[in-house]
Amino acid sequence: MRWSRSHIHTLKEVPTDAEIASHQLMVRGGYIKKLAQGIFTYGPLALRAIKKFENIVREEMDKRGAVEILMPMVQPRELWEESHRWADMGKGLLKFKNRLDQDFCLGATHEEVVTDYVRRDVKSYRDLPLNLYQVQTKYRDEIRPRFGLLRGREFIMKDAYSFDVDVASAHRSYRIMFEAYTAIFSRLGAKFVSVRADSGSIGGSMSEEFHILADSGEDALLVAEDGSFAANVEVCPALDATIPETNNDKLQHAEKFATPGLKTIDDLSKATGVAKHDLVKTLFFSAAEEGSKDLKPICVLVRGSDEVNPIKLKSLLKLANPPLMLNEKEVRDVTGAWPGSCGPVGLTIPIYMDNGVFSLKNYIVGANEDGFHLRNVNHNREYSPTEVADLRVAREGDKNPAGSGVLKSFRGIEVGHIFYLGTKYSKSMNATFLSEKGDATLIEMGCYGIGISRTVQAVIEQSHDKDGIIWPEAIAPFHVHICLLDIADLKCATVANQLYDDLWAAGVEVFMDDRDERPGVKFKDADLLGLPFRINVGSRGLQNNEVEVVARRSKEMEKLKVNAVVGRMKDLLRK
Amino acid sequence: MRWSRSHIHTLKEVPTDAEIASHQLMVRGGYIKKLAQGIFTYGPLALRAIKKFENIVREEMDKRGAVEILMPMVQPRELWEESHRWADMGKGLLKFKNRLDQDFCLGATHEEVVTDYVRRDVKSYRDLPLNLYQVQTKYRDEIRPRFGLLRGREFIMKDAYSFDVDVASAHRSYRIMFEAYTAIFSRLGAKFVSVRADSGSIGGSMSEEFHILADSGEDALLVAEDGSFAANVEVCPALDATIPETNNDKLQHAEKFATPGLKTIDDLSKATGVAKHDLVKTLFFSAAEEGSKDLKPICVLVRGSDEVNPIKLKSLLKLANPPLMLNEKEVRDVTGAWPGSCGPVGLTIPIYMDNGVFSLKNYIVGANEDGFHLRNVNHNREYSPTEVADLRVAREGDKNPAGSGVLKSFRGIEVGHIFYLGTKYSKSMNATFLSEKGDATLIEMGCYGIGISRTVQAVIEQSHDKDGIIWPEAIAPFHVHICLLDIADLKCATVANQLYDDLWAAGVEVFMDDRDERPGVKFKDADLLGLPFRINVGSRGLQNNEVEVVARRSKEMEKLKVNAVVGRMKDLLRK
Repeated sequence: MRWSRSHIHTLKEVPTDAEIASHQLMVRGGYIKKLAQGIFTYGPLALRAIKKFENIVREEMDKRGAVEILMPMVQPRELWEESHRWADMGKGLLKFKNRLDQDFCLGATHEEVVTDYVRRDVKSYRDLPLNLYQVQTKYRDEIRPRFGLLRGREFIMKDAYSFDVDVASAHRSYRIMFEAYTAIFSRLGAKFVSVRADSGSIGGSMSEEFHILADSGEDALLVAEDGSFAANVEVCPALDATIPETNNDKLQHAEKFATPGLKTIDDLSKATGVAKHDLVKTLFFSAAEEGSKDLKPICVLVRGSDEVNPIKLKSLLKLANPPLMLNEKEVRDVTGAWPGSCGPVGLTIPIYMDNGVFSLKNYIVGANEDGFHLRNVNHNREYSPTEVADLRVAREGDKNPAGSGVLKSFRGIEVGHIFYLGTKYSKSMNATFLSEKGDATLIEMGCYGIGISRTVQAVIEQSHDKDGIIWPEAIAPFHVHICLLDIADLKCATVANQLYDDLWAAGVEVFMDDRDERPGVKFKDADLLGLPFRINVGSRGLQNNEVEVVARRSKEMEKLKVNAVVGRMKDLLRK
Repeated sequence: MRWSRSHIHTLKEVPTDAEIASHQLMVRGGYIKKLAQGIFTYGPLALRAIKKFENIVREEMDKRGAVEILMPMVQPRELWEESHRWADMGKGLLKFKNRLDQDFCLGATHEEVVTDYVRRDVKSYRDLPLNLYQVQTKYRDEIRPRFGLLRGREFIMKDAYSFDVDVASAHRSYRIMFEAYTAIFSRLGAKFVSVRADSGSIGGSMSEEFHILADSGEDALLVAEDGSFAANVEVCPALDATIPETNNDKLQHAEKFATPGLKTIDDLSKATGVAKHDLVKTLFFSAAEEGSKDLKPICVLVRGSDEVNPIKLKSLLKLANPPLMLNEKEVRDVTGAWPGSCGPVGLTIPIYMDNGVFSLKNYIVGANEDGFHLRNVNHNREYSPTEVADLRVAREGDKNPAGSGVLKSFRGIEVGHIFYLGTKYSKSMNATFLSEKGDATLIEMGCYGIGISRTVQAVIEQSHDKDGIIWPEAIAPFHVHICLLDIADLKCATVANQLYDDLWAAGVEVFMDDRDERPGVKFKDADLLGLPFRINVGSRGLQNNEVEVVARRSKEMEKLKVNAVVGRMKDLLRK
């Protein structure tokens, strides 16, 4: 491909609406152009990177017996009613009427459609197992799209769905997909980690995410130093690394004391001299399902140094979504005091206590009376917790729950997610088969997604420098970027064109900058676009029959005789 | 790919809503499954055929310097307002609001988006020419989807757009695309023809369609026997093959005569003994633009044996859409008589006369009085036509307008369409560049579509027999269909699996029927799916170390030793 005919226009300025490097670089390099919020046109270079990644995904899926199909983007309401997600998906599912006033939506995911596709024809256990996948454009009506392709509205996904006769077989299918994903992200050439994850609105009981590591990643991950464990912080068990010393203090008498103006744990710690991790924080949530009109207030206790993890609360309470915090007014209605003076003593609502609080004695809590706290409070004396559980956010330095050592903190960009679904969809949509015994049996399902366009940007977020993108070879749009430095010089143009043809013939993919621009502009743009190798073809070097080869990552330059270039490039690219 | 894991379920029965063979066969072969009216899931075999065709298209486009990008399916109203097509496209353009109450539509075509993509960065004549294309899923809200993928709502298109500095260069780009399309459809291995066409709502002044020939095709085509001319009947000039003998009759006196109950040309011909081609048919249309509240009645005269071509009327009157006929009441308001008794004499509205009427003398027309006609009417005496032009539908046997001989009639399925657009979009959307002289100049555009999913079905419509599909090799989902006839026989399974692996290793794409089904079922299904070659691997043949190879098209069978199969298949497939 030649630059002059490919409508790539680079920008010097950072676009004002691009907050992170990968988004900035994709826009500046002409990789993507915004059509509307969260909706982009992929230029020729971005599309090539996307297609390369798609093909890696296809190869690893096909190798494991998955079969590619293509499902529609426009989907009828009826199917989504069967799974109850027409309502449950909320406004993220874009709904509309066609010209005949029938309700449709744009596919944000395809569990309903694929379950219908399969149930119509699967009759017997002999028709299973199946793993069907597609690479397809999806639409999610994000309320606040940002970060370019990382949280867009229209995006490209690979989504796969497995169908099995029983749990054991479904778990096997899940494992195979885990292996496929590990192979896919390994081939990509980016640092990644797989972590335990929450299943969100997809449902199901087992799920793992694959993350490209990047400092600006939206997700907090905790990974054991010995590699035995990794989890999204949302679901990571929290274990104190140092077991608190047994507290042999005698239980003291509880008493109320005035704490005027002390509203936060910081205030209280300063005023009382008690360390934050020995204080108790009292918080209030509603255990009612989203959209319900009831308020089911609950009280949650964590150490003053800890944070409540709403995902853990959600799991404990078996809710569909993480519970929301009560507002100040609601707290006052429940406790009689404004937040800052509340505590568990005397409450008639359920009280959930984090493990960390359980080892405390003679601690301070709010008195449920504005401007007052209680000291020397002890649970199972002044009050009784409904349940003691792991409710806090885990953090770096916590004990590895699966091996030795402690957890280290990383940030990641979620690019893949695999779910064991069980019978969530087969049940609501009545997808059954006849077992060997002749019983109508619900199909066991799993689903497996990779954000294709997202991954491509995530790789850039991990792999760039101040000058631009640094593509890993596996998904680089081209391997080599020829800078034709003197377009008016016949010899120069001839050599560049010959190299272009010879490299293509040798299986090396070449992009040629044939624009009428100064060398400095061309070098800067080559660094911005970030192809693995640049070849400078200029009339000065050609006096010695030489060109320069520059590696994008290391910026190391070597001079080569023209006739040595193809061989050298094949070596460098292992072609 | 193995049948048992690919969720392909064939049907014996013809689906009730499938009217033509290709639609029936695609459904019966499990190629496509309907999700909603005009919306289909592509099964693994259909998707492979589609991808093969996509890649033929890509190769021929890339070879000619076109550059692939990918534009969004969800598009903002604002752009479509600029081209005035938000309203002009009518209900075929599916419109909706996103969660923020902003107007969007689903892309039915991408002139607006690509013009915007280009205009934002093209500054100078040096940035041109460009040819940008994409392979993308589109949605058109067809009021009556039918014929499977031939007139679906959601479908896959290749659409390309050229951008040039002037008309000469734009015509060159158009010619290059004509060559690309000719190469693409030649490689496809189906009989096709390119014809002159109407530009429809896309606009522009030059356009050609590419049709796959098939008896059930929706379009009527007229092709010169000597190959010098081909056109869609919509735009085909109509020239009588035999020039009418000079009519030397003296002009007679016109007179009114009673024709009670004679309403049609047939009635009139029978009652008067005058041949239909010597009678004159009087018709009424409205020359008002669609949606306008005015009625601009016009009268059109053709011979009794001819039909009016509304597309020709549209062009003559420079309308956006073909004019609609007046209803009976409107005709009466204009003429004073019900249809059947109307004629041109005494009318005050414009009268358009087809060339064929011009040579008639002393003819009969309606008297504009119910139950009466006039005989011995002559134009430029009893009335004067506003304009005489080619207004009739051309037909087989008409004179070739571009060479010798006559036109032959074919039916075709439109699969490609190329348009020279001129400045229609660049003007309304202000897409300009600075010319060499420094003037802001409108970009000259062309657009070029291929219905990818449509083509795949059109090929089947052309190439099938009573037993099923007959794929041309170029887009066959696989080259070879192995029927493993005795799945329980170890030797049989071993040989089949070895052949499967060896053929794949030799570049031959193999599909294996490994289902637990009787040979008869497998043979029937193989014929239905239609892969070019079938290999029967059964325990009986293996006693002689033989398998059978059956060519799908000819049904010829040959017996081969197992070790000769790979070589023979490579020969047959020229691999």
